[in-house]
This record gives sequence, structure tokens and C-alpha cells, in this order.
Amino acid sequence: MEASRKMAWHWHFLGFFFLSLHVFSAKAKASQCSIKGLPLVRNISELPQDDYGIRGLSHITVAGSVLHGMKEVEVWLQTFSPGSCTPIHRHSCEEVFIVLKGSGTLYLASSSHQKHPGKPQEYFIFPNSTFHIPVNDAHQVWNINEHEDLQVLVIISRPPVKMYVVTPLLSS
Amino acid sequence: MEASRKMAWHWHFLGFFFLSLHVFSAKAKASQCSIKGLPLVRNISELPQDDYGIRGLSHITVAGSVLHGMKEVEVWLQTFSPGSCTPIHRHSCEEVFIVLKGSGTLYLASSSHQKHPGKPQEYFIFPNSTFHIPVNDAHQVWNINEHEDLQVLVIISRPPVKMYVVTPLLSS
Repeated sequence: MEASRKMAWHWHFLGFFFLSLHVFSAKAKASQCSIKGLPLVRNISELPQDDYGIRGLSHITVAGSVLHGMKEVEVWLQTFSPGSCTPIHRHSCEEVFIVLKGSGTLYLASSSHQKHPGKPQEYFIFPNSTFHIPVNDAHQVWNINEHEDLQVLVIISRPPVKMYVVTPLLSS
Repeated sequence: MEASRKMAWHWHFLGFFFLSLHVFSAKAKASQCSIKGLPLVRNISELPQDDYGIRGLSHITVAGSVLHGMKEVEVWLQTFSPGSCTPIHRHSCEEVFIVLKGSGTLYLASSSHQKHPGKPQEYFIFPNSTFHIPVNDAHQVWNINEHEDLQVLVIISRPPVKMYVVTPLLSS
């Protein structure tokens, strides 16, 4: 994990390659995709989860554009197993995190409008903490705790999200 | 509480009288209103709270337009003491609730585009449940539990919110 983090000190954008949680979500949950068929009040622990191909991730769409008809906000519950992380990525929307349990590291590069975001800042995140990611800023969340899951609520604007992956500059 | 609830079976809008959490928030917290002065990662338990004149309410702006420069989403942590409730109200934005603890009742009138929303539907809300309020639908959240606080995370679009109060039709 340490080597990966060193490589990630400088990032650049991998243009136009993106992960769309929306696309995967629509595919995985098509069998219960009717908005009218869902109850208004839903038990979050009974909602379907997915990993979207990311090792150690459990993603639950609490309120989403595809399943629930949201047009302006979307809410996710994400759990990262020890050592797992998001890709380094950016997206053209506001994003708020609330840490429900566990701890980890946020890497954030604020020079989002340049081709190379450069060296990210590193922040410790902890239970009952909150932070937000400015529109288009490259970022990554790691669960650095070896024994405990990191669980976060994530709120985004402009659903469905399109995540643009950023790759580390290996020469740095 | 029971009498109040019966009166509330039919609602009508009290046009143009509104509570703006934004206005109160800006006033109460002007002394620490600099976005640059706030840490990126914040401890929610250390954030200021207010009741905005609503008996039994504790409101914390987790991520807001005034304090944190949010433009598209806003996140609140609200705690209602036993027997307390929101006003019957509506607002021109999407809203998602996540119930963290406690239980209560959601009243929701979906006929939001009429002058008189009419008889609301009643829903039981419980820990780890979620629901969303369609744009402009009149609604009210009550803590009906006599012994436990009701704590919810609230996500809205289009901050700062303007809440339009709806009053019950007493003749119903």
C-alpha cells in the first residue's frame, strides 16, 4: 500500500475514460427498477449492494437517479474493507462525505483545472467527521485501518455521476 | 399532540411567509463565516447548533452554502426531542432523509401544485430508514416517541433553502 501511495504523489487525468456508477447501477438492479413499485420509506439495510469492480467496496444507493427518480442529489452508503480505496478520480459535481465509522486518508489535489493536478494534500478522516470535494478536484479515499471497515455516506449533486479516473505520474 | 395531528389532516399554503434557515444561519454564525478559515475535515460534534425558534430542535449545518460555500447541495444533522416536530412546510428543492436513531411519523401530501394539498399520507419512520420528499410537496416530520430523540440527516438541493409554511384547515 505504501508504494502505491508514493506513486500517487503526482496525478494526471486519464481523459475521457470514466466509471459511471449510474450505468452499472441500472444494469444490476433492473429487476426492481420501477419507482412506483418501491415503498416511500425504505430500510437501508435491505437495499441491494454492489462493488462495481472495486475490491473491498460495498456500495448502496440510498437515494438515486435510476432507482428513485432523483434529479438533483444522490446519496450513497459506501463501506471500504481494510486496505481498500477508491480510484484516484474527479467528477463534475459537488460531493460531501460523512464518516460514520472507521478512519482513513483523503488525498485531494485542488488544482483541478490543470491537466496535471500535481501533489495532493493528505487529510486524516475519522468517525463523525465531514468534508466536501470541490467540483472537479482530483481525490482518493483510502481505508488505512487494518482492522476496521471505513463507512461513509456520500452526497453528490448532478446525478448520475460520471467518474473520470486520474492516474499517478510514475516518474515522480 | 393528538389534537394537533387531527387538525393537520388537511393543509393549505400560507403564501409567501417563509422561514429561511439560510438567513438565520448567516446571522448566528457570522463570526466564523470565513470559508478559508475552516478546516477541510471537520468534527461534526464540534459544529455549532441552533434551534431556529422551533421547540425541541437541534440543527447542525454539516455542509452549507453560507459557511462552506456549497452551491448545489446542503447537508444538515437534525435532532428532535420527544414530541417535537417540524412545521408543516414545503420547499422548491429535492430533500432526502436518513433516520440515524429514534422513530417518528412523516406526513406527506403529494398534491403539491394545488393551493390546498389536502389529506396527507402517514408513514412510520425508523432507524436506518430513508425517504425523500418530492419538490414542493407539503410535509411534516414528528418525533412520536416519548422517550427517545429522533435524529435525521437531511440533504437538500438548491441551497439556501426557503421553507414555505403550510397551515392546517381547522374545519376538517
